[in-house]
This record gives sequence, structure tokens and C-alpha cells, in this order.
Amino acid sequence: MKVTSRVRKILANYESDNPGTKSKLAQILMHGRLGGSGRLVILPVDQGFEHGPARSFAPNEPAYDPHYHYQLAIDAGLSAYAAPLGMLEAGADTFAGAIPTILKLNSANSLAVTKDQAVTGSVADALRLGCAAIGFTLYPGSEDQYEMIEELRELAEEAKAAGLAVVVWSYPRGGKLSKEGETAIDVTAYAAQLAALLGAHIIKVKPPTEHIEQDEARKVYQAQGIDVSSLRARIAHVVQSAFNGRRLVVFSGGAAKGTEGLLDEIREIRDGGGTGSIIGRNSFQRSREDALALLDTIVRIYQGKA
Amino acid sequence: MKVTSRVRKILANYESDNPGTKSKLAQILMHGRLGGSGRLVILPVDQGFEHGPARSFAPNEPAYDPHYHYQLAIDAGLSAYAAPLGMLEAGADTFAGAIPTILKLNSANSLAVTKDQAVTGSVADALRLGCAAIGFTLYPGSEDQYEMIEELRELAEEAKAAGLAVVVWSYPRGGKLSKEGETAIDVTAYAAQLAALLGAHIIKVKPPTEHIEQDEARKVYQAQGIDVSSLRARIAHVVQSAFNGRRLVVFSGGAAKGTEGLLDEIREIRDGGGTGSIIGRNSFQRSREDALALLDTIVRIYQGKA
Amino acid sequence: MKVTSRVRKILANYESDNPGTKSKLAQILMHGRLGGSGRLVILPVDQGFEHGPARSFAPNEPAYDPHYHYQLAIDAGLSAYAAPLGMLEAGADTFAGAIPTILKLNSANSLAVTKDQAVTGSVADALRLGCAAIGFTLYPGSEDQYEMIEELRELAEEAKAAGLAVVVWSYPRGGKLSKEGETAIDVTAYAAQLAALLGAHIIKVKPPTEHIEQDEARKVYQAQGIDVSSLRARIAHVVQSAFNGRRLVVFSGGAAKGTEGLLDEIREIRDGGGTGSIIGRNSFQRSREDALALLDTIVRIYQGKA
Amino acid sequence: MKVTSRVRKILANYESDNPGTKSKLAQILMHGRLGGSGRLVILPVDQGFEHGPARSFAPNEPAYDPHYHYQLAIDAGLSAYAAPLGMLEAGADTFAGAIPTILKLNSANSLAVTKDQAVTGSVADALRLGCAAIGFTLYPGSEDQYEMIEELRELAEEAKAAGLAVVVWSYPRGGKLSKEGETAIDVTAYAAQLAALLGAHIIKVKPPTEHIEQDEARKVYQAQGIDVSSLRARIAHVVQSAFNGRRLVVFSGGAAKGTEGLLDEIREIRDGGGTGSIIGRNSFQRSREDALALLDTIVRIYQGKA
Amino acid sequence: MKVTSRVRKILANYESDNPGTKSKLAQILMHGRLGGSGRLVILPVDQGFEHGPARSFAPNEPAYDPHYHYQLAIDAGLSAYAAPLGMLEAGADTFAGAIPTILKLNSANSLAVTKDQAVTGSVADALRLGCAAIGFTLYPGSEDQYEMIEELRELAEEAKAAGLAVVVWSYPRGGKLSKEGETAIDVTAYAAQLAALLGAHIIKVKPPTEHIEQDEARKVYQAQGIDVSSLRARIAHVVQSAFNGRRLVVFSGGAAKGTEGLLDEIREIRDGGGTGSIIGRNSFQRSREDALALLDTIVRIYQGKA
Repeated sequence: MKVTSRVRKILANYESDNPGTKSKLAQILMHGRLGGSGRLVILPVDQGFEHGPARSFAPNEPAYDPHYHYQLAIDAGLSAYAAPLGMLEAGADTFAGAIPTILKLNSANSLAVTKDQAVTGSVADALRLGCAAIGFTLYPGSEDQYEMIEELRELAEEAKAAGLAVVVWSYPRGGKLSKEGETAIDVTAYAAQLAALLGAHIIKVKPPTEHIEQDEARKVYQAQGIDVSSLRARIAHVVQSAFNGRRLVVFSGGAAKGTEGLLDEIREIRDGGGTGSIIGRNSFQRSREDALALLDTIVRIYQGKA
Repeated sequence: MKVTSRVRKILANYESDNPGTKSKLAQILMHGRLGGSGRLVILPVDQGFEHGPARSFAPNEPAYDPHYHYQLAIDAGLSAYAAPLGMLEAGADTFAGAIPTILKLNSANSLAVTKDQAVTGSVADALRLGCAAIGFTLYPGSEDQYEMIEELRELAEEAKAAGLAVVVWSYPRGGKLSKEGETAIDVTAYAAQLAALLGAHIIKVKPPTEHIEQDEARKVYQAQGIDVSSLRARIAHVVQSAFNGRRLVVFSGGAAKGTEGLLDEIREIRDGGGTGSIIGRNSFQRSREDALALLDTIVRIYQGKA
Repeated sequence: MKVTSRVRKILANYESDNPGTKSKLAQILMHGRLGGSGRLVILPVDQGFEHGPARSFAPNEPAYDPHYHYQLAIDAGLSAYAAPLGMLEAGADTFAGAIPTILKLNSANSLAVTKDQAVTGSVADALRLGCAAIGFTLYPGSEDQYEMIEELRELAEEAKAAGLAVVVWSYPRGGKLSKEGETAIDVTAYAAQLAALLGAHIIKVKPPTEHIEQDEARKVYQAQGIDVSSLRARIAHVVQSAFNGRRLVVFSGGAAKGTEGLLDEIREIRDGGGTGSIIGRNSFQRSREDALALLDTIVRIYQGKA
Repeated sequence: MKVTSRVRKILANYESDNPGTKSKLAQILMHGRLGGSGRLVILPVDQGFEHGPARSFAPNEPAYDPHYHYQLAIDAGLSAYAAPLGMLEAGADTFAGAIPTILKLNSANSLAVTKDQAVTGSVADALRLGCAAIGFTLYPGSEDQYEMIEELRELAEEAKAAGLAVVVWSYPRGGKLSKEGETAIDVTAYAAQLAALLGAHIIKVKPPTEHIEQDEARKVYQAQGIDVSSLRARIAHVVQSAFNGRRLVVFSGGAAKGTEGLLDEIREIRDGGGTGSIIGRNSFQRSREDALALLDTIVRIYQGKA
Repeated sequence: MKVTSRVRKILANYESDNPGTKSKLAQILMHGRLGGSGRLVILPVDQGFEHGPARSFAPNEPAYDPHYHYQLAIDAGLSAYAAPLGMLEAGADTFAGAIPTILKLNSANSLAVTKDQAVTGSVADALRLGCAAIGFTLYPGSEDQYEMIEELRELAEEAKAAGLAVVVWSYPRGGKLSKEGETAIDVTAYAAQLAALLGAHIIKVKPPTEHIEQDEARKVYQAQGIDVSSLRARIAHVVQSAFNGRRLVVFSGGAAKGTEGLLDEIREIRDGGGTGSIIGRNSFQRSREDALALLDTIVRIYQGKA
């Protein structure tokens, strides 16, 4: 594999990482139809954990089978596939080497009464399953955020030493945050920066709204005239907040909207300088045919062709 | 031992496991009268822990003796015998090699004031006692569920590395669940999937009722027309929720009912695609003669002969 | 030392233990005037911890000295001497090899505000002090019982691996238990069984009353006609609950009563099949002369001579 | 590098440290324009963690880039640069050897609901990033202070064994402290002493006010006629409280004030015997040109030239 | 060094300790003007931790310097010097070998809101600083006492294995204890015994008052006619409670009183059989000249010359 100059430039931003970790980042960045472009589209399937089987897979029954998602990510030419332990264990051998995988190391479920997640896998699991990266969800603002940060710290240190990459889902919630505040531009930019400060290689946040949650932040946004009027501008602000673009930032599909709304949003992410998208329910809750068509369009958007 | 093609096919679903763990799964699947069929009937005896001695064994006094249960499981030609530390320690030498054993690693007791369990054994204990698997009870929904998940995660990782299989009792309770919700179809299917996501090889749940507990789930069950009208259909839904049948799912005897009711239920489990049954009180709380007769019928049901 | 056939039969019940642990059990069972009989009388001195110095030793001043208790146990021909760390440290060299010792690894004190105990020693301490066994107090029913169980589990596993025996004081209290319920027959039998399930070699409980604490248990006791009318019958029920007599069960002196009451109680323990007695305050709170006389009678009761 | 006699004298105060740690202290004390003088000016950038990206960097956009701060500290000829994990990871290779770095091992964020910090890095991280020291923030008085102290204790012991220096930010807050009390002279002197007692090599506190927070302390300050009327006198009292000057004490910029106010304060710190300043927001929230000018003046103040 | 027969007799009471630990006890018992007599006078300086710098050292300014206390203890011919980590680190090299040191491993501070202490040093620290013993404060009765006991247990086991002695400050407080009860005779005797049971070599308590705190204890004190009317008698009772004098018991200076009151109290301690005194504030809060004079008198009291 010849690493493109675009990817080499990205890798150069990860100054402190060992060659093992850089190889894994390169593996993800060079894989699939966007390989070499510096853009990423990732398939995440932790819905089963978060919402249960029927809410996740009943709309598209083949998706009950863990193999379905591996195959979908491969056939769509995506960059990587992210899932919790059991999902990867169920296909790790069949699809060994076929697509970079990200082992989600913590998960919540909808039966829970706290805003926390349980650790459900280890760095050793990621290694034995041949993963390229570990994934970890952080809830900035939650009553349990400091414990979550400390869990992430330990896992990230161990992962880096083992030559794995670290992907952080940074999802503010809980504590003094309002519901609206969870996707506020100031909070989202803060969430991205927290993940970067904690040593994440790839950061996942939600597309931010123009709401500003924190009073102290609002004063600064107004005083400095930070443009939050368009999604594109907000994406650019989030990317800037991630070490001025030295860290890769991918965005989830955001709140329910029509397919066209989703695609428009993705164009904004692209134009704002976002690294790419991470598309779960929008992929696997429609038929395989529709999903492949949708993912094809998304890939082409990031290729600048749609 | 010649492993049957049916069992080889099941083992193939455990893609990520080492040969040690697969051997232990094969040991269970090839043992007893159902050996090689892909079906399982397991004798669990943790009643002493859960309810105390008299409530467990007074109806059939010989059952106070740990040797009784080993012998019953052997004579009935069952697949495996599951019990907590002390019970296995008391017969491990006499019955070494005579039947696969599962060491239950956590237990509750009826004097407790919380919906949690205490860890009462270790993977090292399972190895020194010659067990084929560890067993662990998870209470999805409980206030302590995340701690239980993290205990399971550690024990399962250690067990798999040591070439043992992992059996998870997934019993929803506590938190925001209603009493009825503990056996609701949506919650039971969720519980089975959680165990699969956490890396269980064999999952034990209770036979689900047609009650749907979660509002968000109900919408989906109705919108997608998921059939929950018969036990057979519900069993099939639970099995589907366990990675589309890639994981073995056994069912407990469920709420008190007559012997015929129990046997009818087992026929539904069989026809819905359940892997088998795990029958405790219904076995050891009647005389040995009656128990052997009952277990003979259950085995024949799974053989398709009753 | 020639191990008697009675003791060899008892040792055979400890199927899973290594020769080191069996040697230690044999050491206790073969020691003193009851050596070889399968009966035990043990001197426990943790009163200083539990109630303080004056309440423990002022009635018999020489007992302030740790050497006093070693010498008393030796001179009375008892089976073993149990005490916390400091007490054993203060005499371990002088009395090395003179009597089997049991290091109590946890203790409460009367200044405490919770129904828990602190861990005050380790398996390594027991080894360096030349002990035959570790001792641990469990409070079944306490709010902290699961933590206590997990402490015991770890210590017992470590002790067994190091060739030591495990003695569990199983004293129900706290949680939803009434004061009367702490010595109820159903609760005491449950407590004995819990200790057996947790892997104890020797179990200490209090002599049970005929009170039945748990509603669910009462139904069974009545339905099955379990005889709880005499202490002898209750002792037999407790012993049956400890793996049908496969585990040794010793009884404390119970609530304050006259010497004759105590001796009558001990005859009931003997006739009900109890392994023996563990006699603390009744021994060391009277003069050495009186104590030796009392212990002589107790030993003779277990020899069937009184 | 020839270590000056002034620095050798300072190093002699660290009697118990190994040559590795002394070398790192020397590295900081001999670096930059103040090298060899025994004075320090340090650039700390943990604002992104504490207040988020916009509040930290929007006033001077180039500061979003972690490289900016390394370069600023180098160009200003400062003694060291302190930042959290991600910030150092992003420039550790480019600026390797160019300036001593201090890895901040814990951080708070403004979304939090408790007065605590999360541990966000390790001693191993500090070593792999080539740092001269670890940094740790302690909140004396906080409900969580004892846990924080114990975290610091472990990290400091590990750092010293690995030949690193230990810098402690000692910022009283929480518990029974009033807002005003956080910078009271008695509390600040206490905070400095606590850090010294915990083994810090370099202590950072805020410039103290003349407020006295604790009743018991006030009596002593009055009875002993301790001079707290000028900042210079208060600085001297804090330095005396840090083992009579045997430990280095640096001061932050304190509450917002004009540039002249800041410079006057620094002259007081210098004249009171403070080791130096640690200047964050005042440095990077103005243009690079202005920042360099300001830092030049500060350095010259400590050189006695301004 | 020729160990006196008096000290050899004391060492013989520490039956279970290794030669390393006995050497350290001998080092303390043979040092200073009381060396060889079996009596001890120790200088403890943890006031800075407990009350802050000004309240501790302002009355005698040279005492801000850690070297001051080393020198005072040496010049006064005391048995040992006890202090927290930072204090010892600041003089460990200059005074290496000049006086036995005790590293206090936990400390409280007056800003705290709980009745607990933080662990602030380790056994490894004590070894690298050349200490003879570790020191640990226990608060019997406190809500946190069981956690403190377990911390002590671990540190004491580690210290003994490393050939160090263990000194326990046993200071009842918190929980259901009244303020008066903290120094009650029953509680103080209990506190001394708890320390002995936990394996302390040297026990520090406060001089007890004649108040009896616990109802159950009062009955025994009255029934047994325990003499608590004089301090001498109370001291004797405390010493008896410490394993009948098999453990060394030193007493602090007690509540504020004049110098004569202090000296009278020390005579009572001596005559009651107390091992000696531990004198902090009374030493270092007066001028060095006065302190040396006072300590000279105290030493002479224990020599039977004053």
C-alpha cells in the first residue's frame, strides 16, 4: 500500500504516536473508496446495545445477523466498521483483513437509570480481534464524566502502547446541561477539544446547532464575532477547536431528517472541513439496496462528486 | 469423540474463540443423551444460595447432599451441571470427568436488600475444579447493572483466555422495570442480545410473555408487525435477537405450572428454535424417580420423540 | 501422627482441597484431647476487638496477657486457638507448634456505626505466624454482606492455594433481619449453608432458636413438617443444611445462661450431630481454674463421658 | 551546561531526590533567559480544558494550534511550558529538546458539577513525551481533597522514582472555604505548605490577599504580628511557609487587572522572594507580538531590569 | 551498639517480628539520652499539616525550617523524630544517621470536612529516606475507621516485611463518640488495645480522663472496681490494655496546661508505667533555648531524676 501524500500529511499531525498506531491510522485512512483522500465514512453498529434488538433491526431483518454489517461496510467501500465486543467476535474470522474494525469499549443501554456507560471490552480484546482502533464514548458534563475520563485515559494509554488508534465519541449530556445544550455549538466545540486534549486520534461529535449553552461562552462568541450562523461555519469552528485541524473529526447523522436533509448536512460537513461521517441507523435500518445507494452518494459527496 | 456435523456447525459460529474454549463448548454439546444434536438440557442448582436450604431441599431430602445433584444430572443423561463453588467443591473429585460442570461465579441471597449479586468464585476456581464453563448472572436494568456488566467483562475475558466457555443468566430486574416487565418479550429479547453483545457463548433467559414493557419498543413491535402472540413466536424472536441464532439460548422453566404445562412450554421452546432448557427446582424438588421420569420426557421432547 | 479412620472419613469430604489444606484440617482434627474423634472444641479470643479490654478481661485480669489464652487452650487440651493478628503475633514464637492457631482476618469494634467488619490481617500473615487456618466473619443479611462475601471469596481462594483451612463465622444481622431473626432456625440454617457454598471448611454459627424469620421459609417448614421443637433437632437441621454433614459445624456458647444451661446446650449440640463448640467469654472470663474445669467437662461431653 | 552556583544552591535543598530528578530541576532552572538566576517564568496552557476553546483561544485565533504555545514559550525565552496530554502530544516531536515541558496530569472542565479534577495522563506519558516534570492540581479544602492528595502521592512517588520533577498547583476551594477565602493569606500559605509537605519540588499558588479566612489562624496572625499589609510581605510569608524558602514557589497572574497592574504585582512577587510567575491567559490571549513584549518585560523584572 | 538487657527484654515481646524490624525498634530504644532505659521521648512535627504554617511556627519563626526540628531532636537527645514526607525529605540527607526518624504516612488538615486522613507517603518512601519506622493515625469510632484500619493493615504488613517498625497514633473521634469521650478512660484503653491488635509496635494515645463514655463499659468498670481516680492509675490501665504491657505506649502532651502541669502529668505517665512522651507543640512553639530546657527536664523525669 502506497500511502498518499494527503494521508502522510495527516499522519504527521500525530507526532507522539509510535509506528504501530500510525500504521493503524493509515490502515483506516487508506481503506475503501475514500482511501487516501483524508476523508472517512464509518459504519457504527452499537444500536443493539443502546436501544435493543427490535428497535434496531426489525425495520431490516437481515441486520439481526452480525455478518450483515461487516458485509455492508465492505460492499459500500467504507473506511471502517465499529461495533461492540459480541458483534465483532461473531464475524472477526470470516471478515479478517477485509475491513478495518473499531472495537467499542463501552456501551450504555436504554434500561439504565444513570448517564454513564459500562466498560464492555478491553485493549486485549481489540488486539485478539485484529482491530485497528478502540472506540470509547465520553459524556462531557455528566455526573460521571470524571470517572469516564479516567477510564478513557487508561484505555487510551494502553491502546497507544499496543499500536492501536483511539476513537472518541464525545457526547455531552447530564449534569447542568439542558437537552438543547447537548448539541449547542459551544458545547460541541468544547466536547471535540476535550477529546483532543485526552489524546484521541479520531473524534466523533454530533453536528452542532447554533444554540449557545454557556453564559460565559456566549459573551465570547458575541465579542469575538464567531460565525455560527451556518452549519458549515459551525463545523469549521469545531474542527478549529480540535487543535486547529490537527485531529480528525467525524460527525454523526444528527437528528432524524429526510434523506435529502441528511445529504445536505453531509455537504456542509464536507465544506466546513469535517473529516467525514459516521452513519449507523441511516445505513442499516433501510434495505441493503437502499443503504448501498445512500452510502454511495455519501462517499461521492466526500469525493466532491455529489 | 467424533463431533457431529450439527455441532461443528454451531461451533463455527464462535469465530473468535480459541480451540480450548471450542473444546469446552463441544464437550457440553456432545455430552449426554442429547449429545451431538445441538440441543441442551442443563441442571442448575443455585437454589440453596438464592432461597436457603429448607425452601430448596426439604421437599426432597436427599437433595441436601451435593452428590445427589451430580448423580441426578449424570443418570438423567443431561448436558451439564451448574452450581456455585461449594457445591462443586463437594463432588468435583468423585464425579471428575463424569459430566461437564459450569461454575456459577456470582450469586444473590434472599436476605439481601439490593438487586445485585456477589462474586463468589473465580476463573481459577473453575480451572482447578475441572469445569467446562463459568456461569454469571446479569440483571439488566438494575441500578447495579453497569458494575455487573464490568464484572462479567473481566471474568469472561479471563475465562476465554483460559479456554473456558461463558454462560450468562440474563435476568432483567430493578431500575425502572415493572415486575411484569421482567419477562416482557421486548425486555427478554433485549436481555438475550445484551448477553450476546457481552460475549456470552450460551445465554439463559426466561420464557417471555407477550407483554411489551418499553414504550419506544412497543411502537416498533406494532409498526413492524412482530409476532408475539404465541410462545413459539416469542422464542423465535428471542433467538433471532441473539445474533440471528449465532448464539445458543436456553430457557428456564418459568413460572410455576403443572408438569404438563411445563412440558408444553418446552415443546414451544423446541419449536421456536430454542437450544434447550435449564431445569432446576422442577428437577430436584421431586423424588429422584419422578425427576428422572420428567427429565426423560424433556430429553425426548428435544429429540423430537415426545 | 496416625490419622484416625474417623478423621480420614471427614477429610474425604473435602474433595477439592490440596494436600496442604487437608494436612491443616487434619492438624486441627487430630489435636488435643478430642484429637481423632471428629469433634472440636476451639478457644476464640476476639473479645478485645469486639468489646474492648475492660469488658473482656477485667473479670479475670491475667487474661489481658495474650500468652494467657495460648496457655489456657493448650492446658485444656483444646483443638485450636483463634485470635486476631496482634494477639497471635504476641505469642506465636513462644507457642510455636504447641497448638493449631486460626488467624481471624476481620473484626468489628463496638465504636463502629456500621454492620460491617474491617479486614485486619492477610493470608501472608497467617503463613508467617504458622497458622493452620484463617478465620472470617460474615454477616448474612447485612447491607454490606456482598462486599463481605467478596472479601471472603478472595481470602479463601488465596488461603486454599497456600494450603490453609478456612473457618467462617456466619452471623446473620442487619438489613431486614429482626433481632430475633438473627438466631432463627431458618436463618441459622441458611447462614450455615451460605458458608458451605462459599467454600468454608469449618462453619461457626450460633445455636438456633425455634423462631422462623422468613415468611416464605415458614410455609416450607410447616408444609414439610421440619422438626424445630428441640435444640437437638434444630442442630441436626443446621448440620443437614451444611451439605448434609459434609462440612464441619461448630456452635458458639449462645446467649448468657448458667453453667449448667451451657453444658446442657452442648449435650444437645453433640446429640444433634454438631461437630463441637467454640467457647470464648465462658472460658476466659472466669478464673483459670474454673475455666479448666469447665472446658474439661465440655471435652468430656463430646467424648460421651458427661 | 554549566550549572550556576545559584542553581546548585537551590538543588541542594532537594536533599532526598535522585540525580535524575535533580537533573530535570536543573534543566528547568537553567533554561531560557532566566536560566541560572534561580527565577522562573512558565507558560501554562490548560485553559482549553478548564474553559473550552472559544473562551480560551478566540481572542487570538492562532492559539487554537498547539504548536503556537510551544513556539511562544521558546521565542519568549521562558523556563518551561506546561500543558495537558493532547497539547503536548501534538507538538512533542517538532519541539523535542527545545524547551522543558511539564505534563499536567489532571484537569477540570467547566461542565463539571463537582470540585474535583480527573486524572488525564500518567508518569509513563510524561516519560514518553520527554517531559521534565509532571504537574498536578490540588484543591485543598475540597470535599474530594483527600482523594486528590492520594492521587498526587502516588503520581509523585512514581515520578520521583522515574527521575522527573513534581509541580503542584495548590488552589484552595470548596468545603467550608468562602470564595474570598480561596486567596486569603492564611489559606494560601497553608496551601503552599501542604504542597511542600506532599513532596512538591515547585509550588504554584495565587497571589494572596490580606483577607484571613480561618478564625484560629486570625488569632495567631494578630498575636504574632505577622505583616500581611503589602503583597510583598504576603509573598514573603508564603515563601517562608514553603519550608522557609527551601521549595520554589511561583505565582499565577491573579485576578484580572491591567497590564501595569500585572507588572506591579510581579515586582512585588520578585521583591517578596517569590521564585517567579506562571502566566497563561495573559500571554496567549493577546497577539503574539504583544505577548512577546509583555513576557519580555516580565523576564526583565525578574532580571532586576524593569 | 550493645543492646541493654532492659531493651532486649522489650524486644522479646515482639515475638513475630523479623530481625530487621527488631533492629529498628532497638535503634529507637537505644538512641539518645534515654537510650537503653526502655523509655522514649519523641519529637513529632505534623502540626504544619494539621493546623497550617502560622498556627504552627509563627510563635517561633526558626521552626518554619524543617532542619530546625531535626536539630532540636538531636540536640535534646531525644529517641526519634516523626514527621510527614516533605519535612523528612527536606533534611534526610543532612541528618542521615543522626537520629531515628518515623515517616508519618497519613495526615489530616484543618480545611477538611470529614474525620478521616489522607495517605501521604509509602513504605517505599520510608525506606528511601532511611526511616526506622512508619507512623499512622487511626481514628477509632470515626465513620471512616474501617477504611483507615484496612489502610493501616496493608501498610503495616508491608512495613514489617521490609524490616521497619510501626507506630500508631490511636485517636478516637467521630461516629457516636462525644467530644469528652475522645479522651475517656474506657475509650483510650480501647484505642490502645485496637492498635495492639492491629500489630502496632509503639502506640500513641492521649492521657485519659476519668470520664467513662460507653454504658456497657461503665458497668464493668464499676463492677470490677477498676481504679480510674488518678492519672497514674489510668495510665496503668491503658498499659495493661496494651497486651498487659507487651507493647510500648507513649502519651502526647494532652490539653493545654502550664509547664508545671505538663511536667506533673509526665511524672504520672512515668509512674503509671507509660513508655514515654511524644511532645510536639510544647517543644517547637517556644524558643530553642526554652525547648531544650523543657526537654531536658522531661528526659530527666524519665531517668527518675526530676
